[in-house]
Amino acid sequence: MSEMPVFGAGIWHFATYKDRYATDGYGPPVGLLEQIDKAGAVGDLSVVDLNWPFADFGGSLDDVKAALERNQLRAVAITPEIYNRDYVKGSITNPDPAVRAQALKLLNEATELAKELGCDYVKLWFGQDGWDYPFQVDYHDIWKLAVDGLRELVGAHPEIKFVIEYKPREPRNKIIFPNAARTLIAIQQVGLDNLGILLDFGHSIYGLETPADAAQLCIDAGRLFAIDVNDNFRGWDDDMVVGSVHLVETFEFFYTLRKNNWDGVWQLDQFPFREDSVEAAKAAIRFLKALHGALDALDEQALREAQASHDALAAQRLVQDVLLSSMARMTESQDVNA
Amino acid sequence: MSEMPVFGAGIWHFATYKDRYATDGYGPPVGLLEQIDKAGAVGDLSVVDLNWPFADFGGSLDDVKAALERNQLRAVAITPEIYNRDYVKGSITNPDPAVRAQALKLLNEATELAKELGCDYVKLWFGQDGWDYPFQVDYHDIWKLAVDGLRELVGAHPEIKFVIEYKPREPRNKIIFPNAARTLIAIQQVGLDNLGILLDFGHSIYGLETPADAAQLCIDAGRLFAIDVNDNFRGWDDDMVVGSVHLVETFEFFYTLRKNNWDGVWQLDQFPFREDSVEAAKAAIRFLKALHGALDALDEQALREAQASHDALAAQRLVQDVLLSSMARMTESQDVNA
Amino acid sequence: MSEMPVFGAGIWHFATYKDRYATDGYGPPVGLLEQIDKAGAVGDLSVVDLNWPFADFGGSLDDVKAALERNQLRAVAITPEIYNRDYVKGSITNPDPAVRAQALKLLNEATELAKELGCDYVKLWFGQDGWDYPFQVDYHDIWKLAVDGLRELVGAHPEIKFVIEYKPREPRNKIIFPNAARTLIAIQQVGLDNLGILLDFGHSIYGLETPADAAQLCIDAGRLFAIDVNDNFRGWDDDMVVGSVHLVETFEFFYTLRKNNWDGVWQLDQFPFREDSVEAAKAAIRFLKALHGALDALDEQALREAQASHDALAAQRLVQDVLLSSMARMTESQDVNA
Amino acid sequence: MSEMPVFGAGIWHFATYKDRYATDGYGPPVGLLEQIDKAGAVGDLSVVDLNWPFADFGGSLDDVKAALERNQLRAVAITPEIYNRDYVKGSITNPDPAVRAQALKLLNEATELAKELGCDYVKLWFGQDGWDYPFQVDYHDIWKLAVDGLRELVGAHPEIKFVIEYKPREPRNKIIFPNAARTLIAIQQVGLDNLGILLDFGHSIYGLETPADAAQLCIDAGRLFAIDVNDNFRGWDDDMVVGSVHLVETFEFFYTLRKNNWDGVWQLDQFPFREDSVEAAKAAIRFLKALHGALDALDEQALREAQASHDALAAQRLVQDVLLSSMARMTESQDVNA
Repeated sequence: MSEMPVFGAGIWHFATYKDRYATDGYGPPVGLLEQIDKAGAVGDLSVVDLNWPFADFGGSLDDVKAALERNQLRAVAITPEIYNRDYVKGSITNPDPAVRAQALKLLNEATELAKELGCDYVKLWFGQDGWDYPFQVDYHDIWKLAVDGLRELVGAHPEIKFVIEYKPREPRNKIIFPNAARTLIAIQQVGLDNLGILLDFGHSIYGLETPADAAQLCIDAGRLFAIDVNDNFRGWDDDMVVGSVHLVETFEFFYTLRKNNWDGVWQLDQFPFREDSVEAAKAAIRFLKALHGALDALDEQALREAQASHDALAAQRLVQDVLLSSMARMTESQDVNA
Repeated sequence: MSEMPVFGAGIWHFATYKDRYATDGYGPPVGLLEQIDKAGAVGDLSVVDLNWPFADFGGSLDDVKAALERNQLRAVAITPEIYNRDYVKGSITNPDPAVRAQALKLLNEATELAKELGCDYVKLWFGQDGWDYPFQVDYHDIWKLAVDGLRELVGAHPEIKFVIEYKPREPRNKIIFPNAARTLIAIQQVGLDNLGILLDFGHSIYGLETPADAAQLCIDAGRLFAIDVNDNFRGWDDDMVVGSVHLVETFEFFYTLRKNNWDGVWQLDQFPFREDSVEAAKAAIRFLKALHGALDALDEQALREAQASHDALAAQRLVQDVLLSSMARMTESQDVNA
Repeated sequence: MSEMPVFGAGIWHFATYKDRYATDGYGPPVGLLEQIDKAGAVGDLSVVDLNWPFADFGGSLDDVKAALERNQLRAVAITPEIYNRDYVKGSITNPDPAVRAQALKLLNEATELAKELGCDYVKLWFGQDGWDYPFQVDYHDIWKLAVDGLRELVGAHPEIKFVIEYKPREPRNKIIFPNAARTLIAIQQVGLDNLGILLDFGHSIYGLETPADAAQLCIDAGRLFAIDVNDNFRGWDDDMVVGSVHLVETFEFFYTLRKNNWDGVWQLDQFPFREDSVEAAKAAIRFLKALHGALDALDEQALREAQASHDALAAQRLVQDVLLSSMARMTESQDVNA
Repeated sequence: MSEMPVFGAGIWHFATYKDRYATDGYGPPVGLLEQIDKAGAVGDLSVVDLNWPFADFGGSLDDVKAALERNQLRAVAITPEIYNRDYVKGSITNPDPAVRAQALKLLNEATELAKELGCDYVKLWFGQDGWDYPFQVDYHDIWKLAVDGLRELVGAHPEIKFVIEYKPREPRNKIIFPNAARTLIAIQQVGLDNLGILLDFGHSIYGLETPADAAQLCIDAGRLFAIDVNDNFRGWDDDMVVGSVHLVETFEFFYTLRKNNWDGVWQLDQFPFREDSVEAAKAAIRFLKALHGALDALDEQALREAQASHDALAAQRLVQDVLLSSMARMTESQDVNA
């Protein structure tokens, strides 16, 4: 069996959530250090992505570092919170120049923290940058603000990578970076090598993309810097546990990564609103390990031949052979190891 | 011009909101009395639908009554909050019998309040009753809990009406009452005359229904007890201002109500996350008044003839004639009145 | 291992297709007898559903019977073609009474043929009965025509079953029987015991239903007379090969059928536009056999316990254990038999 | 009032259609010359887009030219039929090199015809180039074939423009050019000035884009060579009559074109399956003329101010003022002219 990938998770996976109905939350608040301890309790996670500013956190950065260390976790990324109350009409595309400046200040500070923590990248998710209504914005102007803001931020920190996590919508009805191709155009206009894409499988699949195709496009452009996985019902970002619905397309996504020798973190972006967060992460990783074994077992040569003639049935047969044996294979392998 | 309808709104229209990203809210909290004052400030609203328990409210019921009175508002309905933390896995369908009992207790108390306030109905919105994952629930069992719970509640209060507000999803990935037909089946199984439907235009349109057709179905069954209006992009419950996107279908919806002599409240269920709530209500009512005038101007006889041969083009022409003159007509009418 | 189900297919599975672009077809025409021979060549099919009138067929009914016999196939159903040129504005709901009469005549003749062939049911698919544009029809009137037409047809043939195959849309933008609940309401209004539902998995899943839940609803009403399976990307009736996308939900669908001791035909409704039709059927049945074995292996007791507390993660684990071992299990079982 | 735009239509607007159910067509066939005469009968059309090879046409090119002339029509474009039986697995991305060569031959011939007819551009619609199933194709390889094929074709004809009409899906489940951004990336990789985009409003809106935003993106890249309009229910390419559903977004689309001084043809791509084709075109143009008048009346300065602060409500009010008076305005203007 080939070497296991590095598994990671957004630290928010271990928080509790609010929404517009359950405004008192889906459970009692979980503090940052407790979130980190829960991430550690999963057992297979090596890295986490941290929101910043640390929400409702009274401790010091050393407390955070200690919590990471005792759980053998590394901060792979910082996700600046440019989508809360101050930024509900946008961060770098906010119509108010003062808010744009405030957003850039926050982004710069988050970047300094990322450097200090030795992160691989700063994650930019522009969930509030976009529009809700027809005729609300001038599309030329808002796009220019986005590209200019990115250039200013990313250009100021050549020593660390930045990734844009695109998403079709939510919380804005339309987000300015909705899919891979549009985001690549922005990256090209920014013109800096340290800006790339974080491809979230769920965002891709409900945004009408084929995630494996979107990944290939980003890889061919040299810009697939990171990925997140989760699942949904193809109409919204449900952030369900990986492998709940789209088993074949998740498998195809990871097949495409392997085929291109992409070796980044297999990272979870799940929102287990009503589930135990540690168990939800374990369930995801159990499935991902089964997928990983299925990749080892896949007859890649035969698959390439099927694809050379666009033979869908032959390809599906090869895939089902290994995917629908993957859990049996894992169990056997564990028996052998036991 | 025919008499104007009674306009109403859910009181939450005048609150501020949270979601899973902007957990600190889209603005500073607005207390209940202030919400009522804002509803009054709209100028055209006669009734409001009140959530209960009153959120973060330290005052007395008399305070609420006084606030309503000073704004010349009447409570048309109570919406019990059976979708917050205690009920995230369901209210009357919760797997835990203790939670089901707690939900029923809350529902009964809310009903008593509705009676005391002279409301027309209690609104039941089962946003947390449903499922998120394949294989999560036994569909027979959960449906039976829903019907039994409804019968117990509604049967205990024959002197007041209850309405189910159906919705395809959110916050649960799948809600147990997703559309009009399914809800009518439940109502039939419950077998009580005082249980009907609140049809939310937005829920209907993003649930793949034709709202006017759903309204007709409910009317023919004698169960269209109330309606809400708003708008969306047909993929989610965006709760946008009425008339933002689906002008023709909104017009058809109200045409169907008039054709059937349905004379209930024209009620707003909008969530102006980033807009001034009073202005958002005014914008909606301005459009609804224009629609109302267009209904007066519509050549109903000619429309019925077009429909008798399913002549879409003739019908569209008649509709455009009045809809695309509706604002001009309103302006003229106001000039005359001035 | 439990006994295998009876497998069937719509005979159109083995035809070639046209659409609005490839008006010259996705391949050379395949005559009816050749279609039947192809169905026979699959090897696992026992029954077929036949369109009528037989398209472009110059032979006799005896020719058809002989072809069925030599392929050891039985006609399980007749599907009357009430959706071609004569009926593009509807069959039993057509605005023209003469066309409605013509449709009923065709339906009655098709029913006589179904009786002569010993079919289990006549399948009614009202793909052209509905509307395309807002304001095109009077929803009350069109619904009444549908219910009255059904009553006249079904009431005239108490000795055979009829099924309505519901579908959200295509070819009409909106079809009058779009989902299970709405169809059950029609059936109830018709008030005859020999009218039920054919639930097409693909129609259900792209119509926002949970197919297993829709099946349970129909079963609880005593009206699940038949099923079809296929797959799609949840936005359109792609009629892809079973098991291409929604493995878990397909499994849940068949689990629900077994749990309720439903023992009808497992029937394919696939449109292999660009694939070899015999191979497409074989691929589907291979997957369905794996599913069938997975049902045998599933720990039903444990699943019921997980569902009793709505424990999605426990349920998913049990499902993945058997689904993701299903192909390995089938291979082993065949080795043993060899 | 500003000068009216040039109106055009795809000639297929005046044909009859088939689909996978009504394989005998939605009406009797309409020959090419009759289609052209119907286009002429609309009265407001100046240009048409012609499919080639001319379907079921026994006449000469001179016959076509004469028909155009007698109807005062010009051929604005040729649309080569690279999506019928020979190309159901793709044209320039077909897995078979012989089919790719055949497609290029057809495309070159179509281009020569376009030059001879003095067309503005050749329209490339790759409806069969893509995939249906997960794992069916190698995404890197198919994309390369697309870009290389485009470069070979477009590079050979520098004296005429080519446009790619992107579309998310249909007939392939996934089309290789699904949206504006992805298509712009291909155009950039091709690297030739005479290759641009035809933006179809309906494709854009059901592909999750905001059409006005997509138009702005293409304009800013200097690549918006042509547009088509129609309407749909945002889930499929229904090709309904313009103005049936999305009035506001259609208005915003044309506002964006005017704002950028884009002065191309306002072209119809409608499929009136069950409607009179001449009347369907007239209905569309009637609405478009009303929109055109509304653009004249719009307070652009006030709108820009509203957009400068992302004030959705102010923008909607300005838009409703003119859109919902547009038919009254047109009627008055015609009275004046009469």
